[in-house]
Amino acid sequence: MAETGGGFSKGRLEAFSDGVIGVIMTIMVLDLKAPASAEPAELFKLWPSFTIYLVSFAFVAIYWINHHSQFMRVRRVTASLIWANAALLFALSLIPFATAYVAATRISPFPTAIYGALQLGCALSFSLIGTTIEAERGDDPEFRREVVGHRLLDRLSLSAYALATLIALISPAISIAIFVAIGAAYAVPGIFNERSLRKARGRPRA
Amino acid sequence: MAETGGGFSKGRLEAFSDGVIGVIMTIMVLDLKAPASAEPAELFKLWPSFTIYLVSFAFVAIYWINHHSQFMRVRRVTASLIWANAALLFALSLIPFATAYVAATRISPFPTAIYGALQLGCALSFSLIGTTIEAERGDDPEFRREVVGHRLLDRLSLSAYALATLIALISPAISIAIFVAIGAAYAVPGIFNERSLRKARGRPRA
Amino acid sequence: MAETGGGFSKGRLEAFSDGVIGVIMTIMVLDLKAPASAEPAELFKLWPSFTIYLVSFAFVAIYWINHHSQFMRVRRVTASLIWANAALLFALSLIPFATAYVAATRISPFPTAIYGALQLGCALSFSLIGTTIEAERGDDPEFRREVVGHRLLDRLSLSAYALATLIALISPAISIAIFVAIGAAYAVPGIFNERSLRKARGRPRA
Amino acid sequence: MAETGGGFSKGRLEAFSDGVIGVIMTIMVLDLKAPASAEPAELFKLWPSFTIYLVSFAFVAIYWINHHSQFMRVRRVTASLIWANAALLFALSLIPFATAYVAATRISPFPTAIYGALQLGCALSFSLIGTTIEAERGDDPEFRREVVGHRLLDRLSLSAYALATLIALISPAISIAIFVAIGAAYAVPGIFNERSLRKARGRPRA
Repeated sequence: MAETGGGFSKGRLEAFSDGVIGVIMTIMVLDLKAPASAEPAELFKLWPSFTIYLVSFAFVAIYWINHHSQFMRVRRVTASLIWANAALLFALSLIPFATAYVAATRISPFPTAIYGALQLGCALSFSLIGTTIEAERGDDPEFRREVVGHRLLDRLSLSAYALATLIALISPAISIAIFVAIGAAYAVPGIFNERSLRKARGRPRA
Repeated sequence: MAETGGGFSKGRLEAFSDGVIGVIMTIMVLDLKAPASAEPAELFKLWPSFTIYLVSFAFVAIYWINHHSQFMRVRRVTASLIWANAALLFALSLIPFATAYVAATRISPFPTAIYGALQLGCALSFSLIGTTIEAERGDDPEFRREVVGHRLLDRLSLSAYALATLIALISPAISIAIFVAIGAAYAVPGIFNERSLRKARGRPRA
Repeated sequence: MAETGGGFSKGRLEAFSDGVIGVIMTIMVLDLKAPASAEPAELFKLWPSFTIYLVSFAFVAIYWINHHSQFMRVRRVTASLIWANAALLFALSLIPFATAYVAATRISPFPTAIYGALQLGCALSFSLIGTTIEAERGDDPEFRREVVGHRLLDRLSLSAYALATLIALISPAISIAIFVAIGAAYAVPGIFNERSLRKARGRPRA
Repeated sequence: MAETGGGFSKGRLEAFSDGVIGVIMTIMVLDLKAPASAEPAELFKLWPSFTIYLVSFAFVAIYWINHHSQFMRVRRVTASLIWANAALLFALSLIPFATAYVAATRISPFPTAIYGALQLGCALSFSLIGTTIEAERGDDPEFRREVVGHRLLDRLSLSAYALATLIALISPAISIAIFVAIGAAYAVPGIFNERSLRKARGRPRA
């Protein structure tokens, strides 16, 4: 229907995306099957499941944070934006499946490569959201200033995902390590910059 | 209780519907069971599950978008609207079941027909929402202008759902193709119109 | 912590309750297990599951509607209100379990009685919310006017739940019929009154 | 990304956390497996599952309430706050797993100790949120007044969680009793204080 984009509320689109992302993040735990035995060894055997669960949880959290930052730049909800967003939600919705697959096969090469390919798919559909925003606001100088610098980081992370996917076929452990590094690259600088800022302002850290 | 419709908040009804639709969209993935073997063939065998999962995800996304457009026309929340909306949510809530049924039987005729019948049920209960809004605002000329043109499209899609249901009994593959066509008919024009509009305004596409 | 009630936002309590109720309503479908065979008879054998699923869905929807009406009377969020609300959410959270229990035992006497007892528990904790609101606003004449008439209906429905629980042990079918009647008693009058009102105003029904 | 904390909306962070906590609270019920037999004894055998389900539900509800109180003190959303909050959500997301583990092993020593350790982890990440707020607002006298008194309670509860974890290895029943006591210590005073207040104001309790 041609009118789907007309007057669509950004708030409702954000709230809906938050709801879907929140559910994705939470239902993954249902694939962590509790052992029926009280034997500690039975629990420790689940370490591959916990490892990949932690990685997936962190990535979905990062997508949620970046989705928020991305949408702060949206001025008008277009049909293209709605469908780029739906593509991202679709890719993210498969993360619990890919996580369960890696866990069930105890971090084997092929399933880890599939996991990497899905992460690449998520990153590409996230880029697509950026592209649709740029199509709307590309001639707005304020927007141009905001996104400068992000491009490089985004291209680097796309390459890192592609690399992690290929390497998984040889060494799934190195592949997972690359994911941990990408995650840290997104999460750590924000926290670190903040502390420097606080010190510069001379505010005591309690 | 006679007063259920009195002073009912449209925002809360929309937020609740969004929550339910978001959960429906997301829990479907729990029926995609990850293979316990790292053998690629085991994953590829799941193609009917992925096909129907993608179709269902797209349809629930379309319902979410159209629900939003529909509710922009609501002026007053009536008890009839609340129950027509509950009927839609009920029909949509069965989509994960019907999706799992089609997946488990690898897109067989009878389950695909049941899937089509459920989609028809969703479309009919969505129409019911339109009818209750019209009962409230039918003599409002602004409303009349807005809905003209939609009627034809909605009747066409109801016929297409009915057709897809019957054809499923003979060829489930054609039935699924009809669903893909209906989905595209809803999603594509909005995106296409937007681009023409942008070109007409002479805005560069970056 | 003594301060939990102080300055607590009613909007956030409502939104949280909506989220929980929406998830309860939706995850019930996960207990409807799709048959692995395309044989129609295998699907029709699930009729007890569909029947009780429909009853549970309708009841959770009614609780959601009545929760909204009830909270329109709240002026101040107290710790008692938060915990009465938590008790309701806890009782409602068990409905998917009780529904699956009745379905798995194909509407047998004892499970249906447990289902009835749980519905009674939900109704009692819903009454508790009313009691805590009354403790706050009991001397407010506007509040007194609003709740008159509801008391009788609420007592009638509590008795009907108790009756349905006891009768289930003899005839689960009659018990389910009583639930359908209670549900209809909540849903139908609102819709009916509205139509009379519309006719009285001389507005055409399209 | 350095800018993740900049201009981040507190409302959206709260709404997202509410969504995740609400889903956690609700999906736990999926691990309560309904007996396939109508025999009452089969239901009663599930008492350890119901006990630990009730404890977990109450704790997640308490976290939700305290999360709300905590966030009322937030003035600016920093990257540290977002990640401390993500750590809490991660710890809470494992509660359905730990609950299923305790239930499946019928409240055995080792699984109950793991459950206690997870609760300790939740409490520690909740403290971390407090620490990040303090780093921002530590020199604000209003903030200092508000949090005085909470510190002692929070330290007491951390010690109680550690104690419950150790005792579980000897007597899981005593461990569960300590959890019930901690829960009551959070929930009861609020309700009690309110009633005294109401009496002091001379308002009748209906």
